[in-house]
Amino acid sequence: MTFDDAGSIHPDGEVAHDDGGTLTYVGPRRGPAGAGDLDVTGTIVMPGLVNAHAHSAMTSLRGVSDDLDLASWLREIRRAELRLTAEDLRWGLRLALVEMLRSGTTTFADMFLWDAGLLGDVAAAGMRVMAAPTVFGYESVGYPSADPRDGRATLDLTERLAADFAGDRHVRIAFGPHAPYTSPPEVLRDVAARAARRDLRVLIHVSETAPEVADSLALHGLTPVAHVERLGLLEVPTLVAHAVHATEDDIQILAAAGAAVAHNPVSNLKLGSGAAPVPAMLAAGVTVGLGTDSVASNNTLDMFEEVKTGTILQRGIHRAADVVASEAYLRMATAAGARAVGFPETGVLAPGRWADVVVVGTDSTRATPMRAPASFLGFAARGDDVRHVVVAGRLVVRDGVVTTLDEAEIRAQVGATARRLAGGPA
Amino acid sequence: MTFDDAGSIHPDGEVAHDDGGTLTYVGPRRGPAGAGDLDVTGTIVMPGLVNAHAHSAMTSLRGVSDDLDLASWLREIRRAELRLTAEDLRWGLRLALVEMLRSGTTTFADMFLWDAGLLGDVAAAGMRVMAAPTVFGYESVGYPSADPRDGRATLDLTERLAADFAGDRHVRIAFGPHAPYTSPPEVLRDVAARAARRDLRVLIHVSETAPEVADSLALHGLTPVAHVERLGLLEVPTLVAHAVHATEDDIQILAAAGAAVAHNPVSNLKLGSGAAPVPAMLAAGVTVGLGTDSVASNNTLDMFEEVKTGTILQRGIHRAADVVASEAYLRMATAAGARAVGFPETGVLAPGRWADVVVVGTDSTRATPMRAPASFLGFAARGDDVRHVVVAGRLVVRDGVVTTLDEAEIRAQVGATARRLAGGPA
Repeated sequence: MTFDDAGSIHPDGEVAHDDGGTLTYVGPRRGPAGAGDLDVTGTIVMPGLVNAHAHSAMTSLRGVSDDLDLASWLREIRRAELRLTAEDLRWGLRLALVEMLRSGTTTFADMFLWDAGLLGDVAAAGMRVMAAPTVFGYESVGYPSADPRDGRATLDLTERLAADFAGDRHVRIAFGPHAPYTSPPEVLRDVAARAARRDLRVLIHVSETAPEVADSLALHGLTPVAHVERLGLLEVPTLVAHAVHATEDDIQILAAAGAAVAHNPVSNLKLGSGAAPVPAMLAAGVTVGLGTDSVASNNTLDMFEEVKTGTILQRGIHRAADVVASEAYLRMATAAGARAVGFPETGVLAPGRWADVVVVGTDSTRATPMRAPASFLGFAARGDDVRHVVVAGRLVVRDGVVTTLDEAEIRAQVGATARRLAGGPA
Repeated sequence: MTFDDAGSIHPDGEVAHDDGGTLTYVGPRRGPAGAGDLDVTGTIVMPGLVNAHAHSAMTSLRGVSDDLDLASWLREIRRAELRLTAEDLRWGLRLALVEMLRSGTTTFADMFLWDAGLLGDVAAAGMRVMAAPTVFGYESVGYPSADPRDGRATLDLTERLAADFAGDRHVRIAFGPHAPYTSPPEVLRDVAARAARRDLRVLIHVSETAPEVADSLALHGLTPVAHVERLGLLEVPTLVAHAVHATEDDIQILAAAGAAVAHNPVSNLKLGSGAAPVPAMLAAGVTVGLGTDSVASNNTLDMFEEVKTGTILQRGIHRAADVVASEAYLRMATAAGARAVGFPETGVLAPGRWADVVVVGTDSTRATPMRAPASFLGFAARGDDVRHVVVAGRLVVRDGVVTTLDEAEIRAQVGATARRLAGGPA
């Protein structure tokens, strides 16, 4: 069976791709499986999932500051980050890659201290990333200790990385100003100008909490969305993370500008930020992707959980079970998310699209009975149900095991990082 | 490591029990594991989870009516239930038992068409249940076709079952009037009198939706909680399911009466009912258990999901990350839930309590790093992480496999039920 953008399901389906990693056939089975084929009998075949907002290398901070709201959490997390070495970040990233791949995520957007080495790790693992090196202000913020570069140097680095990875099918580079409350107006204007000049996307956190909006109104007389629009940031393709407290006017601004939103229901709830006005965004025609945010505010990277939590949350807060259809969040996690993160070639199973495919097992109690695959995927499935994952035609997860990374070594290394941070033996 | 009622954690812990299934030791390891011992090195040992609200035999209706609110959903579900045979219900129950055991649930409260045969299945599987045979009115409601008994006959049956299972450590019987909007006042008065006479508990759905409260105010001039109090139902130990729309006064009534609440965050969201005022209930001293409700409104039976969703939901809607502590929902899923469902002997790992123990594996990416076991259990763990389950000292799940039921046969039978309901080949 396959799930595609239009929600159509093909029992006994077949998916084929060429040597370049592009799909050539998606439809009913045309004949018996060949010797080199993956047997998908009794499974659900769906597009690779797209995590539209992550900070992957932070996995070593899982479980730090579980009970803090965003402002206090940011302070605690940055304090912990300052103690992470470049090696710590690398093992942390690899742990996230394993966790994402095993749970069916093939593409992600990520703001962090990206460099060529880390980006190479993503490509080597077989994943796709829209990577945005984080920028706060122009002054060095010593964040983390391993990376004392200032904001201007990071913007220069972003442009160099974009040139180095131009045309790459696994790595795309975007500018990553952290947020309007951490990046001053001159930085955001500079980012807008550079992005327009280099034809690059921008990823920025906007309107995550109510206090952020109140502060912006007090300081600029504008909501955070109107503020970044005024600075020219929405004249380039921008992915706005969170938008939890976007007003009706903000939503119209985002829709008119063609900006996309990365919606993170679990992180927004856990940090006490709230619930984004997703039905209004969808009604206005905003492209909404779905993300986990970092594990330090989640604490997992399972997109199936975001789909279910996001769907039922909207129903609960609007007190209407039909406020979002069952499949709306599945689309955010696939086709819409792919467009949001600048990889429109993935997220849909159709000829001509990239061969990023997830095979979900159905031999479990929660898949029984299998009344409608979209019901199972949206309300019962977990990342643990993912059996195989293919990216660009390459089998990167086989029978639940990531073939491109050494999970045991990675877990040991990240465990050692956490013990060192806690002051115990590494 | 162990997690107990006081939240204390014992790395390298040991749990021992006597032949009667009662714990004799919980604490630091006293020596190397013996030949018959379960090796729990590198795991977390916690109390068996308590699902405070289920309708287990409905698993064959998983995925029916995913997009309906409670009122429409009830009509559709009852239409489907009428087509279920007694055999269908039995296989549906067994599927739920497998799903609950594998995800660490050892005790549950359940309203359905209970009879001695179904209760025997629960005990044979090694689980514990507070079972409440459903009563609507006194007239036969033909619900389902296999069970044309009327309400008075069901109340008589409830008393007979209670006598038959008196002193049983796996089965306890309660009265199960469905709800104040389906069970007329004379039924609820009768239930209150019978429960007082027989010293039995009552399980009833109350204040699940806003329209239910509005209707009750219009009809009786009282909220549903005040209405059932007026009828004497809170003079016996009553477990109120949902209480989503309990007012401050309602919460004081429940607290004063010593009534317990079964809180079902996922089901309440999915059906568009809302979010229960849990912090206010806890502050008032109400005993709050945690439940999944039926898979037809969830669509899983994983208590770890209820813990995480419930915790972050309260933080999100109150816009305060500290509104419920990390461990509050873990307690609802264990010690408080056990008291709520009338099995106070379980839910806590301590000498003298029953040996209902769950061993959670930590050899996964989401358990890495392991900063605090309660953080992992509350925000990252899934039922899939459960490795072994012991009930009354008996090993009923070993390495993720239920030893007391044939999962493959059960899945095949429930699949056949669903195909028959859909009009296809059984």
